[in-house]
Amino acid sequence: MTWLDQIRWDAQGLVPVIAQEDSTGDVLMFAWMNREALARTAETGQAVYWSRSRHKLWHKGEESGHFQQVHAIRLDCDNDVVLLRITQLGHEPGIACHTGRHSCFFQKLENGQWTPTETVLQDPDQIYKK
Amino acid sequence: MTWLDQIRWDAQGLVPVIAQEDSTGDVLMFAWMNREALARTAETGQAVYWSRSRHKLWHKGEESGHFQQVHAIRLDCDNDVVLLRITQLGHEPGIACHTGRHSCFFQKLENGQWTPTETVLQDPDQIYKK
Repeated sequence: MTWLDQIRWDAQGLVPVIAQEDSTGDVLMFAWMNREALARTAETGQAVYWSRSRHKLWHKGEESGHFQQVHAIRLDCDNDVVLLRITQLGHEPGIACHTGRHSCFFQKLENGQWTPTETVLQDPDQIYKK
Repeated sequence: MTWLDQIRWDAQGLVPVIAQEDSTGDVLMFAWMNREALARTAETGQAVYWSRSRHKLWHKGEESGHFQQVHAIRLDCDNDVVLLRITQLGHEPGIACHTGRHSCFFQKLENGQWTPTETVLQDPDQIYKK
């Protein structure tokens, strides 16, 4: 029984993953991994997710250059959620969101409305032209 | 179109939720909400989840006394993941995990093994006797 076998993969063979910035504690993004994605993440030290929309492995940063260096891999009490402690590479401050923002969680509920709260650090057209 | 309608609920009518401690930035737990759970969370200022195992609303702390005071509700770029900024009430330091630990993410991958890294702050038998 390996550490990968101990994870309770869901019916699709996936596990939810939270990526948290190691230096600030900011929650940057949420995604999914299958067994191969998590194995590669552990082996390479860079985050590899499973894209549910594209149905393939997704080495975060492969298009944007914004790779994620993984410092720690944690697992919750039910063995069914993973937490990564990462450094978001490629820009300072790090850009995890495809909108060019630091964090994907930039919408805040204020007076019954979702309000954007973070500035765009880099134009997505610039990021994905690389 | 209300703020609740803007969320992309999954096929089961649920959205994944990350609970992050406001004072420390620690990621404490991960759970799910349906529409009613999120509406109640916003109304009451305390976290209400949907228990997928018990198939009912779950006011976090209803058995343990370890309620979660909600400071902010955030939504990601795809409108399908919620991030709560909370204070974990009922014990100092806060206990979010049913094992009596601060955070549910207490297992760390070290040398190919999941290793517990946080101490048990209170015996679960004590917590759930209340």
